[in-house]
Amino acid sequence: METLPTKAYGATGSLFSKLAPMEIERTPPQADEVHIDILYCGVCHSDLHQVKNDWHNTIYPCVPGHEIIGRVVEAGSAVTKFKTGDLVGVGCMVDSCGTCSSCREGEENYCEGPVSWTATYNGYMKPQNKDFNTFGGYSTNIVVKEAFVLRIPDTLDVQAAAPILCAGITTYSPLKHWNVGPGQSVAVVGIGGLGHMAVQLARAMGATVTAVTRNKDKQADAEKLGAHEVLISSDSEAMEAHELQFDFILITIPDAFEVNDYVKLAKRNGVIVTVGLIGPYKAPLDNQEMAMHRRSVAGSVIGGIAETQEVLDFCAEHRIQPEVEIIAMQDINDAFDKMMDEEVRFRYVIDMQSLKDAQ
Amino acid sequence: METLPTKAYGATGSLFSKLAPMEIERTPPQADEVHIDILYCGVCHSDLHQVKNDWHNTIYPCVPGHEIIGRVVEAGSAVTKFKTGDLVGVGCMVDSCGTCSSCREGEENYCEGPVSWTATYNGYMKPQNKDFNTFGGYSTNIVVKEAFVLRIPDTLDVQAAAPILCAGITTYSPLKHWNVGPGQSVAVVGIGGLGHMAVQLARAMGATVTAVTRNKDKQADAEKLGAHEVLISSDSEAMEAHELQFDFILITIPDAFEVNDYVKLAKRNGVIVTVGLIGPYKAPLDNQEMAMHRRSVAGSVIGGIAETQEVLDFCAEHRIQPEVEIIAMQDINDAFDKMMDEEVRFRYVIDMQSLKDAQ
Repeated sequence: METLPTKAYGATGSLFSKLAPMEIERTPPQADEVHIDILYCGVCHSDLHQVKNDWHNTIYPCVPGHEIIGRVVEAGSAVTKFKTGDLVGVGCMVDSCGTCSSCREGEENYCEGPVSWTATYNGYMKPQNKDFNTFGGYSTNIVVKEAFVLRIPDTLDVQAAAPILCAGITTYSPLKHWNVGPGQSVAVVGIGGLGHMAVQLARAMGATVTAVTRNKDKQADAEKLGAHEVLISSDSEAMEAHELQFDFILITIPDAFEVNDYVKLAKRNGVIVTVGLIGPYKAPLDNQEMAMHRRSVAGSVIGGIAETQEVLDFCAEHRIQPEVEIIAMQDINDAFDKMMDEEVRFRYVIDMQSLKDAQ
Repeated sequence: METLPTKAYGATGSLFSKLAPMEIERTPPQADEVHIDILYCGVCHSDLHQVKNDWHNTIYPCVPGHEIIGRVVEAGSAVTKFKTGDLVGVGCMVDSCGTCSSCREGEENYCEGPVSWTATYNGYMKPQNKDFNTFGGYSTNIVVKEAFVLRIPDTLDVQAAAPILCAGITTYSPLKHWNVGPGQSVAVVGIGGLGHMAVQLARAMGATVTAVTRNKDKQADAEKLGAHEVLISSDSEAMEAHELQFDFILITIPDAFEVNDYVKLAKRNGVIVTVGLIGPYKAPLDNQEMAMHRRSVAGSVIGGIAETQEVLDFCAEHRIQPEVEIIAMQDINDAFDKMMDEEVRFRYVIDMQSLKDAQ
């Protein structure tokens, strides 16, 4: 069978977790698939976790990237929503079972099929084909089922749109699900890739937004993004003064942290949602603090495809834009280092021309 | 000032945590207070925790008891709801700030005043009077503000009603708050004093109820209480088969436990509420399990006064009755031992005549 040779950057093992150029092969589009020429790909903290095998499930070689912006090169014969030349996006999912109640209700991100949804990278393509791994957007092109391809509104900046596909939807979905809106007091904890989107989105939804960060250097940026107030989490007096203040707290910290510190900030009936952490918190949740004010701690993961289209349209309508720094594919290892050191403001986006041009 | 000499059973220190007879003094009723002759008092697991100083906040001497059924001896001059001879109840609270938003909205149990609500025992009476401790229902009589006194419906069995005032409201409140009803699948974890009420209440609300217990001996009892199904938590295959099965999980285990075992049982958007535990869980919550199905873990503490009246009326209407074993006040230390050994089915209630008759 004919294949599509594709240039990519990937890791060959966790011990050698520097990314390096590699050739991968894509299968040409079937009837319901779209072949996309990748223009830009965002760099998510998950990419780093996955390459380093932090979640103990990485299949090597690993080609990360799930914030993909590109143009349709070829649409399969049964594709109806897209045609050659369309500007499109691909987020964290490229398939799901399609039959469970979550999928039927448009929440493919909560697929309860045999292997849950198929991740854009490091995802099994089919349960019966466990040897097949998916390769993500750190590559020149990708082939994806039409149903998992998003339309990119014309008014979005094509260079900056990529992070909406993960950072945007991951924060938009819980803000919507828990009905964040006018009159509500919202805290966004962690002002990185996800948090800087959450501040903008919650503000556009009408809430009063407090950015919570341990990094004082981010204060001015957070205010520019629309935060009404900035709370420095290392300032214990300020934290204490904010106890019982928030209806909704969205935590975007990507590693294990002490959740009880943030529980206290929630009002009676307040909800604390963690989106960045895949794994256990640092310490046991204290049910006394939870019960005394009927607080809830919840988790949320990305969003459904329809909702991802919704956040793209919402960003276009409200002129919300990720703050990005464009890098070359060849700069990725340096970018990973800076991300770990929290130097990025707020998302790196790879210009894939750099990979196409490489010898 | 005149005082009301009152026989009681209490603990004088955690090292001597056996309860023993003692004399305490009550203040005669002020204008807005009711003097109650105590007929019955339920024995709650909290009584045991408090006597043993498990929460590191016990003030000795400690006279427990917050499931009080009695008759009005005297009503203060401004009391309008009660008169001498009325059958009344007192639950976990005897006062609250009255001015915070929780109090104004009838949720005194979430009082945000300077010292939260005043507990029926081991509660400061007023913030400015920290030397004053409250003494509970292991005594012959009590004086309580009218606003914190409940009406006991005629059709309730006076011997069995006491546990509704804590075990009943503590489980009823979250079942109502999270809208448990027909078409929903509910698990009640821990079939003790609280759990045996929760099974009956959830069933009466129209839910399909699964009782979850590690104790196989409770299977028949749980079915008799109305459980459609009994799940033995030590049976790992059965637990696995119940993953993603429940809309709502109410956990009544009174000590630190592994919450992640129960999180897995919740459906997408499922809610896990812990009511028995005052303090941290055994291990950190795993946000991966939480996020992958957008589950919530929450806490809830008793219920408001209006809601406590509601559950009393609900139990009368639906002929729900706590399963009680009547004991004498003199048997309390033995009862505590049996409660620790999980031998009680399901709630001890002290017949206070035994204390009145004592020499």
